[in-house]
Amino acid sequence: MRGLVEVDVLVSEVGPRDGLQSVKATMPTKHKFHWISALAEAGLREIEVGSFVPAKLLPQMADVAEVVAYALTLPDLSVTALSPNLRGAQAAFVAGVHKITLPVSVSESHSLANVRKSHAQMIDEVKAVVALRNEQYPAIQIEAGLSTAFGCSIQGVVPEDDVIRLASLMVECGVDEVGLSDTSGMANPSQIRHMFPRLRSEIGVDKTGSAHLHNTYGQGLANVVAALDVGVTTFDSSQGGIGGCPYAPGATGNIVTEDLVFLLESMGLRTGVDIDRLIAAREVLASGLLGEPLYGYVPGAGLHKSFRYAKELV
Amino acid sequence: MRGLVEVDVLVSEVGPRDGLQSVKATMPTKHKFHWISALAEAGLREIEVGSFVPAKLLPQMADVAEVVAYALTLPDLSVTALSPNLRGAQAAFVAGVHKITLPVSVSESHSLANVRKSHAQMIDEVKAVVALRNEQYPAIQIEAGLSTAFGCSIQGVVPEDDVIRLASLMVECGVDEVGLSDTSGMANPSQIRHMFPRLRSEIGVDKTGSAHLHNTYGQGLANVVAALDVGVTTFDSSQGGIGGCPYAPGATGNIVTEDLVFLLESMGLRTGVDIDRLIAAREVLASGLLGEPLYGYVPGAGLHKSFRYAKELV
Repeated sequence: MRGLVEVDVLVSEVGPRDGLQSVKATMPTKHKFHWISALAEAGLREIEVGSFVPAKLLPQMADVAEVVAYALTLPDLSVTALSPNLRGAQAAFVAGVHKITLPVSVSESHSLANVRKSHAQMIDEVKAVVALRNEQYPAIQIEAGLSTAFGCSIQGVVPEDDVIRLASLMVECGVDEVGLSDTSGMANPSQIRHMFPRLRSEIGVDKTGSAHLHNTYGQGLANVVAALDVGVTTFDSSQGGIGGCPYAPGATGNIVTEDLVFLLESMGLRTGVDIDRLIAAREVLASGLLGEPLYGYVPGAGLHKSFRYAKELV
Repeated sequence: MRGLVEVDVLVSEVGPRDGLQSVKATMPTKHKFHWISALAEAGLREIEVGSFVPAKLLPQMADVAEVVAYALTLPDLSVTALSPNLRGAQAAFVAGVHKITLPVSVSESHSLANVRKSHAQMIDEVKAVVALRNEQYPAIQIEAGLSTAFGCSIQGVVPEDDVIRLASLMVECGVDEVGLSDTSGMANPSQIRHMFPRLRSEIGVDKTGSAHLHNTYGQGLANVVAALDVGVTTFDSSQGGIGGCPYAPGATGNIVTEDLVFLLESMGLRTGVDIDRLIAAREVLASGLLGEPLYGYVPGAGLHKSFRYAKELV
């Protein structure tokens, strides 16, 4: 049924990946099934369910193939996963995801810290992943997520030209979409308004992917408003804002799905998501990550008397 | 010195009024002096230092006249206070404030709950305040702050026409400015973008006052971005986001000054405020309100490597 409802903005839930890989606790596999199912029930159409990385590096993600297999049984859900390299991409392809995201840092110092690869090495990796996909898994989509696109907590300023150049290179490598990640929450609305139109004019609307924003400095939804102004229609977010940036103590991770959906619907933009069900899914999350702080305002405040879903505003 | 620096946006600090009147604890008078002084040192040019209301209703505000007297000794600071009625306004005038804000609810049910007056009674009160000012205190400014302008937690939807009509009536009554208050944090960016241009075209740029936004649903800075787009240049905010809406458990109060200044400066808009000094003022606040939660992201995360003040971007 969900697939039949048109949306204006795609909210891509990344909590089971970006969130769960950043917290200390490991959510049991069955609990992940329960949570992902509740998220899908709330109307989310795309969920990044995990990361294909060695279990010794991220034990929280050891069950990713099982989680993908489960998520693929849910109707009308686009199942995505992160894969930092060829090996991870291959495992994701075998698991049958609909799409993978390859994290490619614009800042070379971040690239070396995050995936232990130089730009040149990472580009070779992307080419190898695309070649494998083209040969054996032509239906699977590949998105390059450009990390540190709005600033890097190691390098500092990341020039816009570097972002555009790398995006263009990614398209030449054969990826289907290029998204921009504000890895450490350093973006501001003016920067967003300048960057996305350049990206789109460089690589085209069809290849422009999601805005992956973090709320480290509390600027997340402000950046969403700016991104909407310049035509961005896909946003990554995580339920409860789980995650977190190791460089910013006390800061939250991704923008909060609950508050994002509230914002979009209030503005008359259909997301297909039901906020009450989303809050029900949050309870599943909370019960699987005891003691972890969850963020967001809407779940505590509840829907107010003048809130209307976008479809009711038509 | 502060008065010599031009600003693009005026950040009007309301914590000592909207914040302190909403928390359980009462900050000692000397501690208020210390805090207000630290806020002014950080570069804030306008501070709402208290509310002229009966001490038996709000004991936190019993010392408001003393606090005004102290604030008036600080250089280049515009000292404002809230006055819900003629009696309060008279006391504020005698105390020597530069400006008073009269809270006037667009929702009549909120007006009855908040100031125990119907619209007709409140309009009479405004007229009496203006008459007193005109006769005896011609230099003091009067702003009408239209409460529940974007929705009311009692009434629900508040029609835009009602807001514009009341704003116009306030100007006829002789107030100098009309600001719009999102009392319960119910505004959304689309609404903001529609409302402020109508207000300005109805009453003129000179009479359009501040946007007073709350962060109850986490939408505060998103609404700021929208308000900037339609020419709003004064924003009320409170340090640490203190305050809170009794109708929204767990919700914060005003938008957080620290995060607001960070947003504006990042966008190239000069506020005249130094964030490190603002964080120093926050420590003064915290030490005077032990146990009260303070909100905001920037104080915990700190300024990042690519942050630049607007003046450095020129």
